[in-house]
Amino acid sequence: MPKIKKLLVANRGEISLRIMRTARQMGIKTVAVYSEADRNAPHVKFADEAVCLGPPPSNQSYLHAEKIIAACKNLQVDAIHPGYGFLSENAVFAKMVTDAGIIFIGPSPQSIEVMGSKLAAKNAVSKYDIPMVPGTDEAISDIPKAKIKAAEIGYPILIKASAGGGGKGMRIVENEQEFEEQMHRAISEAQSAFGDGAVFIEKYITSPKHIEIQVLGDQHGNTVYLFERECSIQRRHQKVVEEAPSPVVSEKMRQAMGQAAVMVAKACNYYGAGTVEFIVDEHLDFFFLEMNTRLQVEHPVTEMITGKDLVKEQILIAEGLPLSFSQDDLKINGHSLEIRVYAEDPKNNFLPDIGNLQTYIRPHGPGIRVDDGFEQGMDIPIYYDPMIAKLIVHDETREKAIQKMINAIADYQITGIETTLAFCRFVMEHESFVSGKFDTKFVERYFSPEKLEIKWTEEELTLISGFAVEIFEKKKNGFKGAISKDTALSQRTNWKNRLI
Amino acid sequence: MPKIKKLLVANRGEISLRIMRTARQMGIKTVAVYSEADRNAPHVKFADEAVCLGPPPSNQSYLHAEKIIAACKNLQVDAIHPGYGFLSENAVFAKMVTDAGIIFIGPSPQSIEVMGSKLAAKNAVSKYDIPMVPGTDEAISDIPKAKIKAAEIGYPILIKASAGGGGKGMRIVENEQEFEEQMHRAISEAQSAFGDGAVFIEKYITSPKHIEIQVLGDQHGNTVYLFERECSIQRRHQKVVEEAPSPVVSEKMRQAMGQAAVMVAKACNYYGAGTVEFIVDEHLDFFFLEMNTRLQVEHPVTEMITGKDLVKEQILIAEGLPLSFSQDDLKINGHSLEIRVYAEDPKNNFLPDIGNLQTYIRPHGPGIRVDDGFEQGMDIPIYYDPMIAKLIVHDETREKAIQKMINAIADYQITGIETTLAFCRFVMEHESFVSGKFDTKFVERYFSPEKLEIKWTEEELTLISGFAVEIFEKKKNGFKGAISKDTALSQRTNWKNRLI
Repeated sequence: MPKIKKLLVANRGEISLRIMRTARQMGIKTVAVYSEADRNAPHVKFADEAVCLGPPPSNQSYLHAEKIIAACKNLQVDAIHPGYGFLSENAVFAKMVTDAGIIFIGPSPQSIEVMGSKLAAKNAVSKYDIPMVPGTDEAISDIPKAKIKAAEIGYPILIKASAGGGGKGMRIVENEQEFEEQMHRAISEAQSAFGDGAVFIEKYITSPKHIEIQVLGDQHGNTVYLFERECSIQRRHQKVVEEAPSPVVSEKMRQAMGQAAVMVAKACNYYGAGTVEFIVDEHLDFFFLEMNTRLQVEHPVTEMITGKDLVKEQILIAEGLPLSFSQDDLKINGHSLEIRVYAEDPKNNFLPDIGNLQTYIRPHGPGIRVDDGFEQGMDIPIYYDPMIAKLIVHDETREKAIQKMINAIADYQITGIETTLAFCRFVMEHESFVSGKFDTKFVERYFSPEKLEIKWTEEELTLISGFAVEIFEKKKNGFKGAISKDTALSQRTNWKNRLI
Repeated sequence: MPKIKKLLVANRGEISLRIMRTARQMGIKTVAVYSEADRNAPHVKFADEAVCLGPPPSNQSYLHAEKIIAACKNLQVDAIHPGYGFLSENAVFAKMVTDAGIIFIGPSPQSIEVMGSKLAAKNAVSKYDIPMVPGTDEAISDIPKAKIKAAEIGYPILIKASAGGGGKGMRIVENEQEFEEQMHRAISEAQSAFGDGAVFIEKYITSPKHIEIQVLGDQHGNTVYLFERECSIQRRHQKVVEEAPSPVVSEKMRQAMGQAAVMVAKACNYYGAGTVEFIVDEHLDFFFLEMNTRLQVEHPVTEMITGKDLVKEQILIAEGLPLSFSQDDLKINGHSLEIRVYAEDPKNNFLPDIGNLQTYIRPHGPGIRVDDGFEQGMDIPIYYDPMIAKLIVHDETREKAIQKMINAIADYQITGIETTLAFCRFVMEHESFVSGKFDTKFVERYFSPEKLEIKWTEEELTLISGFAVEIFEKKKNGFKGAISKDTALSQRTNWKNRLI
């Protein structure tokens, strides 16, 4: 069996660091790659060796397969971990790596290819008893035929591009009158966005929850599920808060979803770590959505509740080892929450707010984990996803985990840019989140920029007058971070008590 | 039962923060106290309210019982947590607090008093079957009588001050010839240091290990032990590396020590968190040393392997609640190590090296915990213990935990002062530590300043010439931190690969 001795991480930022930490812990040497914009990034400093791939944008660096493979040969690298994004779900890259005699830490190119196409994925799983959202089994472009099918399914209807993802190329049709026009638009959009006009139609779920199952499979046919992650809190169709376990999933439902996920994995001969995404409706019926053939951004919540290091398991699987545990060995321990800290302005439609991290002090303490790729004083580069960090907490119960997250958010000190921290605090304190009764429409239903405004009582305003001067001075000197009401009030009492 | 709503922590630095974190998580309001030297310390910023006690030194601030109790009354504080050091083992203070109608988070004044005197402690436990180091049962000042007793016990002999602690007032006598002179000295030293010349003599153990048992008792007579901590690695008679469980303690020995510790606690009607210290000889026989009636600095390693928050348990016990778990519910999970990061120069006899924390970036990641009370840019005050932080790791096995600690030490970025980090790395890599075969004489046996020097081969020196210039520039610009050989070598390969 090939023992991996040196690993190249074909990625950047927090996920590159996170993978290299596990590799180092396993005694594996690490190689970082970087673009010219990331020359001084922590992932470069952390690695045993580092190779500059070229300038941003990514097609000249992080997406440049040939350069990455050349670096591996030059430095005698045994294996590549692709992280998420970039080349992680690129079947051609996976094949190039394997053909070059390098271990690709991930599934086979065939599995990536099958699950990369919604139609191929549907076909692959069709011989198993996996619940699917009612809809067309194959791509449809004949509009009259599609209209008959839509009537059968019942409105509202969703039109989806076969090659789409992340909400791109989707259209909701509320009633029959709109159908034809929306079909024309969807087909031409899919054609221009993906070079492939294939679309299919399916039942539109009004109050959808996004719940996914983590699976792990080895190269010997053993596959297990590591329970669910609830990822319904999204802004701009992208996840921003995740948790495990889900507050609405019963033990019976968990088992049914887990078994369905294992079947999906088996349907494409899957090995490695993968995620089977489901859409869950208001009756808690679940339907297979798609499989992500890589490590997910939100994998830490699964690690926190299972005690398993998913990157370590990926590496052991890639080395050809059988899984060292069975389904029965896996137990849920406590509750874990993750928030994504983006350099975005929640008061301005979550638009990126890049700049310099003037202050950057992480919260820490038992049950608090921060996965990030920045240090104080660094600039957030404009070329990449503006995620600064993932803040993950673990505690005995969901209630305690929420409280710990609120405290950790208060302790996170970031100035110089706007972030999603205040928004995430809003989520943690919202009754709909606390009760567990929320869906992917949480943000559009409950959030508006005023919700982040601080409301003061007359009495408070009088009391904090001294502190207000301090805030004014700070703002004048370029302080951009938010001061929460609690912080201000506690500072006020500090200020008052200092006069005792 | 009294529910604590507002807690004052009569302490500073990392332990003040650590206690307040748990309080906040439990929904309890927090009050910090501080001396003028700590005005801008993180524990002051973290608290909901903060009170300045006065100037350093401590007798005008952190040891000023009346001021602390007055602050409690002024701010309607329900309870005081004393942390460790300062007033934590002061029976008079505990009684003053209780008399003022405030809950003291700790044992009763009586328990503190009994265990605060070595002789009273010995008397208290004498009716139980607890192994004691052979020696005199009571204080002895008649030198001829003492000499006869010493001959019975057999040399080498230890003379200890009744009121001593932390290695103070101890003298080893190798043979009969030295005995009289050493007794005279010990008595006069004890008199001047503690105002109490009482000494006793006992068998001196040549290869001692320091192993302690964590106990928790409620106010209803339930007492459990939370296994052992191995604390033999000490410099200047003070602990610097701790771990749980001990690599030499078998399940049977653990149970015997645990039961002995519970008996010690019962002997003084103990409630709260306490630590029973044992000395363990080369045959793995253990002898009761003393009981510390407070939270220990090294309590986190116990938290990591048991999953219990000891401060939370202390608070619940102080509220009068019964323990929510029994001995059978407690299990050891994995292995935990702690190192103490002191602002000390290991190359200069571990003398304090205070100054400014020019760079201060914590290691982080799964299984890594840092308990500290500093932020980058702060000065280390001269008035207090120079401990900057405790770095704690947890992993499945001792071997993995050691590897994780080595990696975490490498990731800890501190410049501006010398620290014990490089020394702790030396410990982690030393075969005697790795094998588990070490005792409290580890430092004198194996350590010398040259061990921290970097030795280069000719080939390495040639290769790093470019990097050497960088180091030189850094040093010229005031960089004081050590650059480990590994870091330098990895930087060298970085530097080389950047030319590709």
